[in-house]
Amino acid sequence: MTNSDIFIGETIGTAVLILLGGGVVAAVTLKKSKARGAGWLAITFGWGFAVLTAVYMTAPLSGAHINPAVTLGIAIKDGVWDNVLIYFAGQMLGAMIGAALMVLAYYGQFRSHLTDREIIGDPADLPIEGGHTGRPGPVLGIFSTGPEIRVIWQNLATEIIGTTVLVLAVLTQGLNADGDGLGTLGALITALVVVSIGLSLGGPTGYAINPARDLGPRIIHALLPLPNKGGSDWGYAWIPVVGPMAGGALAAGIYNLAFA
Amino acid sequence: MTNSDIFIGETIGTAVLILLGGGVVAAVTLKKSKARGAGWLAITFGWGFAVLTAVYMTAPLSGAHINPAVTLGIAIKDGVWDNVLIYFAGQMLGAMIGAALMVLAYYGQFRSHLTDREIIGDPADLPIEGGHTGRPGPVLGIFSTGPEIRVIWQNLATEIIGTTVLVLAVLTQGLNADGDGLGTLGALITALVVVSIGLSLGGPTGYAINPARDLGPRIIHALLPLPNKGGSDWGYAWIPVVGPMAGGALAAGIYNLAFA
Amino acid sequence: MTNSDIFIGETIGTAVLILLGGGVVAAVTLKKSKARGAGWLAITFGWGFAVLTAVYMTAPLSGAHINPAVTLGIAIKDGVWDNVLIYFAGQMLGAMIGAALMVLAYYGQFRSHLTDREIIGDPADLPIEGGHTGRPGPVLGIFSTGPEIRVIWQNLATEIIGTTVLVLAVLTQGLNADGDGLGTLGALITALVVVSIGLSLGGPTGYAINPARDLGPRIIHALLPLPNKGGSDWGYAWIPVVGPMAGGALAAGIYNLAFA
Amino acid sequence: MTNSDIFIGETIGTAVLILLGGGVVAAVTLKKSKARGAGWLAITFGWGFAVLTAVYMTAPLSGAHINPAVTLGIAIKDGVWDNVLIYFAGQMLGAMIGAALMVLAYYGQFRSHLTDREIIGDPADLPIEGGHTGRPGPVLGIFSTGPEIRVIWQNLATEIIGTTVLVLAVLTQGLNADGDGLGTLGALITALVVVSIGLSLGGPTGYAINPARDLGPRIIHALLPLPNKGGSDWGYAWIPVVGPMAGGALAAGIYNLAFA
Repeated sequence: MTNSDIFIGETIGTAVLILLGGGVVAAVTLKKSKARGAGWLAITFGWGFAVLTAVYMTAPLSGAHINPAVTLGIAIKDGVWDNVLIYFAGQMLGAMIGAALMVLAYYGQFRSHLTDREIIGDPADLPIEGGHTGRPGPVLGIFSTGPEIRVIWQNLATEIIGTTVLVLAVLTQGLNADGDGLGTLGALITALVVVSIGLSLGGPTGYAINPARDLGPRIIHALLPLPNKGGSDWGYAWIPVVGPMAGGALAAGIYNLAFA
Repeated sequence: MTNSDIFIGETIGTAVLILLGGGVVAAVTLKKSKARGAGWLAITFGWGFAVLTAVYMTAPLSGAHINPAVTLGIAIKDGVWDNVLIYFAGQMLGAMIGAALMVLAYYGQFRSHLTDREIIGDPADLPIEGGHTGRPGPVLGIFSTGPEIRVIWQNLATEIIGTTVLVLAVLTQGLNADGDGLGTLGALITALVVVSIGLSLGGPTGYAINPARDLGPRIIHALLPLPNKGGSDWGYAWIPVVGPMAGGALAAGIYNLAFA
Repeated sequence: MTNSDIFIGETIGTAVLILLGGGVVAAVTLKKSKARGAGWLAITFGWGFAVLTAVYMTAPLSGAHINPAVTLGIAIKDGVWDNVLIYFAGQMLGAMIGAALMVLAYYGQFRSHLTDREIIGDPADLPIEGGHTGRPGPVLGIFSTGPEIRVIWQNLATEIIGTTVLVLAVLTQGLNADGDGLGTLGALITALVVVSIGLSLGGPTGYAINPARDLGPRIIHALLPLPNKGGSDWGYAWIPVVGPMAGGALAAGIYNLAFA
Repeated sequence: MTNSDIFIGETIGTAVLILLGGGVVAAVTLKKSKARGAGWLAITFGWGFAVLTAVYMTAPLSGAHINPAVTLGIAIKDGVWDNVLIYFAGQMLGAMIGAALMVLAYYGQFRSHLTDREIIGDPADLPIEGGHTGRPGPVLGIFSTGPEIRVIWQNLATEIIGTTVLVLAVLTQGLNADGDGLGTLGALITALVVVSIGLSLGGPTGYAINPARDLGPRIIHALLPLPNKGGSDWGYAWIPVVGPMAGGALAAGIYNLAFA
């Protein structure tokens, strides 16, 4: 894989991931969406099949990490760090492009939702998150994750546990023959593992399990001039970065101890 | 593949697609259906598995494009235009046959739904669309797509984005060994990509992402003598044709730049 | 495959099919079931994965037809009728055993449901069907199918259309290398085709698409001494036998014309 | 496979199974979870994909039995008992670790749920089970199974029937080339069989179908100092141990008679 293939593959792959993953939360949350109120099953399958689509498409190009925690886990497993920064750069750029495309696809829905007085009430009263649950209010939850109960150690623990499961599944079975990225064969299974983590460990924090998935769209949320969009909750932003990276490292450690 | 195989395969495949895809919307929408109110997850999985069934069945015959946007994308990718019109003809014919078969399977449900005074109220008050959401009223939404917010540029953008994802997934991984159609191996993944697009990008316009899927059933809607069926919304009809074709072309361009 | 393997395989396979398929309707319908009210998606996925489990288990033994319409379709395709009656016998016996096992697993739920005055009201007022929809009342719908609107020609048409799709999918892609039964590879796809038919064509009649699946459990319903169980609706019983057999024959005809 | 690989594989595999399987019930049941009220489909897919993740990850290490009933079935089939106790030990240890990790991930949710006066009311009035159904109350249902109707013979019968289906599916199609554990190819199918059993046979008892899955978390429930947690229902605890073991043995008997 050339540096150019890696960068392009990760950019396209992570853009598709966030376009579709952010898209399903928008679809379920926003006013004037046909999917409004479709619920948690729709969100978890939507994110899982977003992984499927993105990995399936870009696996031959870059190995489809589309997640810095996966890149970190593979680097630790192999002790090879050559392309790590190229992967990270593509993933962050892709996540931001994907979030922007998602807003484009749902532009009218965002406008309508954010300007409906019956829905928004007094923005000052609104909770910061609110995307997943269908509660009215600002729309940060469509872009990034937020905890239902804000306790740093538990929020970190939940993200670490979820990401450890994900990266361990990728390392044990998802890799291609060269061992440097996901194989197309592993795409379906990895996607269903992501559905599993969503259903089972998504309740407390909304399962970032991927730093680029959370930070990239949060930056776009901060930059976009949407009315009544609410704050970008930067105080929480480090947890879905640090937690998943720790989980990726932990998974690589468990792999090297027990599976290698 | 002979011309005859292509035409027959595309006709049967697209007929099965619309029979099952239209069928799930009828099942969820109409009075006196056991599936009434089963919701958006049922609709998105129903359309996805309709693709699965149709592609699986006809892939060996015609490559199972069953979508003019896929045919266009493959033609641009290869620069080969020989059979394009045969594909289009089979797809349009199949879509119309499928819509007619769907009405046959749900004939009593259509009659019952459209003549129930409590449901239809005064037809003059009814919105044009209304199939997906379970709202009472005319039944165009069972045949063809319609936007929740009618803004041409956004409706076009949403259809272009969704179709680009679909056709790019087909071009990168779904094709058979000859590269001229879907392989049976890619049928399952392509079907789940369609579920993904439905869940994530279906909210604003109902995701036509296939000109034949929208135009063929719309013609049948216009021709059938159903009482209180409402208008066929021809003013919108060009968007789910032009948008998906533009998306198919865009996907082929991205493919040739980044993946070839 | 020996006659003994065919008979044992079809008996076990069809028993598992009806145990699990009838089971999901019992689970969703009956009082004091944890799955009560889980809805149409649960029923359609439940029947589809019942097919998966049964076919996966018995494909190496008998080819896992577990459906007289599939047996008929394969016989017409090949012009070989040697084992047809053995298949039918195993399927009917298995369907009856499966229905009895289902009642065993849900015995307390049946008793509780059928003796609850608030639920059953005056049995004389109750509709004959009623299992799928969660409506209180007799429990024939857990055993066998029934139409929402009782019009012979449409009920027949819906069953014919659904079974044609199923058997055509089996004939085109589901068969093993010898062509005389389902392959294990085709089990997953065939199961998802059954989910698709359920979601898309199950609304009007509850999709028997398999004579043994409907007739075997109906016989058990007639024989079992459950209180307030209601009638077995023998007036309808021929439709889910004749319709699916006609669909299987039609599929074989289409196959031999267009795909062979 | 070395003894060490077996023990480590089963411990990790069963821990992941219970972390994710218990997790989905916590997610759907507890206050302040984004998945609250997601319903029975979420629970059954959640447990099925928990099996997928755990088996996929540990199949190369230990054959991923992660269920004493599967271990027993394979031992009877082969007449080989050498490693059975190592399997059992790993499974029980893993199940307890998994339950503890699940509580860690949902710690705030447990605290919040168990101390909310509106939810818990007077703990003395509460039923012992109550996790699956979303009813407020103690949380044993997140750890272990319990019957909707407490009748020993039926509860045993339901668990025996469900486990027989599971283990027979594993023995006929899920095993790896050596026949001593699950193959990675069989992981997906086995997972969908578990979804099927959940949907179809989970209604009466909550489908333990695995002694370690029920007993391990029950021990953790008994040990954890959670407020208002309610009793651990030891009177029922033997049924989800004895029933599944009997089902595993029965499946091996059927296998050796009909399939070997």
